[in-house]
Amino acid sequence: LHEIDSVSSFAVDSVNLQKQIDELSSFSDSPAPSVTRILYSENDVLARRFIKKLMKEAGLSVREDAVGNIFGQWEGSEPDLSAVSTGSHIDAIPYSGKYDGVVGVLGAIEAINVLKRSGFKPKRSLEVIMFTSEEPTRYGISCLGSRLLAGSVTLATALKQTVDNQNISFMEAAKSAGYAENNDFSTVFLGDKRYAAFVELHIEQGPILENEGISIGIVTAIAAPASIKVDFGGNGGHAGAALMPQRNDAGLAAAELALAVEKHVLESGSIDTVGTVGILELHPGAINSIPSKAHMEIDTRDIDEKRRNNVIEKIHESAVMISKRRGVELLGFRIVNQDPPALSNELVIEAMESATQVLNLSSKKMISRAYHDSLFMARKAPMGMIFIPCYKGYSHKPEEYASPGDVENGVKVLALTLAKLSSN
Amino acid sequence: LHEIDSVSSFAVDSVNLQKQIDELSSFSDSPAPSVTRILYSENDVLARRFIKKLMKEAGLSVREDAVGNIFGQWEGSEPDLSAVSTGSHIDAIPYSGKYDGVVGVLGAIEAINVLKRSGFKPKRSLEVIMFTSEEPTRYGISCLGSRLLAGSVTLATALKQTVDNQNISFMEAAKSAGYAENNDFSTVFLGDKRYAAFVELHIEQGPILENEGISIGIVTAIAAPASIKVDFGGNGGHAGAALMPQRNDAGLAAAELALAVEKHVLESGSIDTVGTVGILELHPGAINSIPSKAHMEIDTRDIDEKRRNNVIEKIHESAVMISKRRGVELLGFRIVNQDPPALSNELVIEAMESATQVLNLSSKKMISRAYHDSLFMARKAPMGMIFIPCYKGYSHKPEEYASPGDVENGVKVLALTLAKLSSN
Ligand SMILES: [Mn+2]
Ligand SMILES: [Mn+2]
Ligand SMILES: [Mn+2]
Ligand SMILES: [Mn+2]
Repeated sequence: LHEIDSVSSFAVDSVNLQKQIDELSSFSDSPAPSVTRILYSENDVLARRFIKKLMKEAGLSVREDAVGNIFGQWEGSEPDLSAVSTGSHIDAIPYSGKYDGVVGVLGAIEAINVLKRSGFKPKRSLEVIMFTSEEPTRYGISCLGSRLLAGSVTLATALKQTVDNQNISFMEAAKSAGYAENNDFSTVFLGDKRYAAFVELHIEQGPILENEGISIGIVTAIAAPASIKVDFGGNGGHAGAALMPQRNDAGLAAAELALAVEKHVLESGSIDTVGTVGILELHPGAINSIPSKAHMEIDTRDIDEKRRNNVIEKIHESAVMISKRRGVELLGFRIVNQDPPALSNELVIEAMESATQVLNLSSKKMISRAYHDSLFMARKAPMGMIFIPCYKGYSHKPEEYASPGDVENGVKVLALTLAKLSSN
Repeated sequence: LHEIDSVSSFAVDSVNLQKQIDELSSFSDSPAPSVTRILYSENDVLARRFIKKLMKEAGLSVREDAVGNIFGQWEGSEPDLSAVSTGSHIDAIPYSGKYDGVVGVLGAIEAINVLKRSGFKPKRSLEVIMFTSEEPTRYGISCLGSRLLAGSVTLATALKQTVDNQNISFMEAAKSAGYAENNDFSTVFLGDKRYAAFVELHIEQGPILENEGISIGIVTAIAAPASIKVDFGGNGGHAGAALMPQRNDAGLAAAELALAVEKHVLESGSIDTVGTVGILELHPGAINSIPSKAHMEIDTRDIDEKRRNNVIEKIHESAVMISKRRGVELLGFRIVNQDPPALSNELVIEAMESATQVLNLSSKKMISRAYHDSLFMARKAPMGMIFIPCYKGYSHKPEEYASPGDVENGVKVLALTLAKLSSN
């Protein structure tokens, strides 16, 4: 039995899946309902253990690579063919929610359970992947695990010198979590023929599906993300004694640049351009001290790479201009990453669409404005993404929510898509 | 011998005083040359022990009150007369320098030594005071010790409910440092006749004396300081998925208000108006998260109280307007303190001036733009301040510096002023 005969045999254990989502959210550095799970922290290690346990319970054979990407494999009847893979991440930025990424990991394991229970046997092997550090929280690098899988030599090298803001090296942190044994991250790189396809299930993180009452989003492209770190430096000084004309306040330079980011983004001419200053830190950070240093981290994205790069250029021009006008030093303007967008593969899109039709679920083709590990997996395999609605489009905050029914729909579409791709 | 016959017998042990300044700076939570010494921290307690040791070595009888103001008394020949007091603080904001406040405490103890070595015997008792928490770092309250000495009932009550940003209560912290035994801070209040005069020696924290090559600044007034805490709140959300028109970014509201503070201050029409945003914190503080909360602390001062209050009003109007325009909630706008300026006492000014003449030191009358414990001591005693030059006017940063020669001049002027006031 290689093919799915009838989806009527598809049974998602929604109650148990919700239990798993709730249990996973308890591995957090911040109090519920918020979730904070930082790469290689104690809670991250506990959460990883939980995922490996669930993979094993689903009958998958579990393997981890040097950065902690976790793979659970269900061997197909033709194991020499490229496998079909699915997955997402479980790390969570500070004070965020419990669905981002998680739905695509726990949902993938449940999709395997659904297929097993239905009596399905895969032709190509199926693999569930939990990617390491999709979020850039600790080391400033987004999609760390999938970037490495995609073969980033630069990143494999850079990681040996990378430290977090507590000055803990990536190497040391990875080793403390049980990884990086051989000090060689190039072992993570995927071979070109490893995967025949990659599919990721994820909450939309936007309001469109909910607003339009549609069950499934079929992602055709992922917006091009970039992130920038900016540092300004001034003389600082006493907030009472230094008169205004004597000042070169690094904090005010940062405030101006934050507003300039918003201005350049709004002037791009497209609703698809976004830009955010999520981090702005002042030094020394005392009420009676003029800021002598300001550190900012800027995120900007677009589905049009050129338009986004043009915004980056304008942000840079503003930073230079502000620093000159204010007599503040522009200590750094570093583009940390400037990734191109990714397109979904036509065959994967077809498989997802036909799955929604067979399951009788409404669907809509859409763009992913958030980036995902799929952005990098697209470099190594035909890629597709399945979106489900989430409450008010909220994400990256405790109010993030997807209903059990919507999660169930997503798991079914994923299961059927995997079955189809496995049989190709 | 009640009177000083000749200042030729005045000998300041500059080498030892510099050694003490250096040793005190080693009690720090940040690496040299920066100094960070936070109220009731381990290093603060060690520094207090050091001060008490020096007071005892100078033959002073040492007493501490319920918040940890430390008093070292040299009993006069007429101990029933009101005493003459001097002193300053030794707490240091994060990453600041080793002279702010310290010169007025170690210098005062050395002034006592100078007088003792010269054979002088005071008529009125002389007292050296080390004030608790002149800096607002930990509990957001500046001049905490001297405010209480000046009889602030509001503060004595509020302290029982006050917590730091780690949620450690003032009570708990004070007790851990060995204070607040009776849970009653009203015991700190000074009686009205306790001091006949108060004089504080301090670095200028501005560039005027150095630029003009003048040895001593005689302070005639202290600018009126105010501090404000502002909190904005928005919906936050994912930096990729939330489109610009959907956003209400608390961080951008804060950036706008920071620039508005600068604008209102510059528009006051006077060089004497200053305003600073020294603290600006974003929540959750992740590069890919739209700030859902922003916390700011604003310091504004003027020698003209009305003009400063007008600036505060305009800052408030801006905060309201920005919050409306951006759809961001103004969660709080709290004026933490809004103190009036203080004038120096004519007799104390005369004593300081005549001291500089006797010592043949150039001097200049000036305004203190920084606030000091003297601002509050002025409510309980005729007050005066002695400024000495400091390098480039730098303060509140590691580069803060006063030369041993300038410190020596300050100590001599202080010693002679105390001697004169003690004999009145
Ligand atoms: Mn995320
Ligand atoms: Mn995600
Ligand atoms: Mn200070
Ligand atoms: Mn001071």
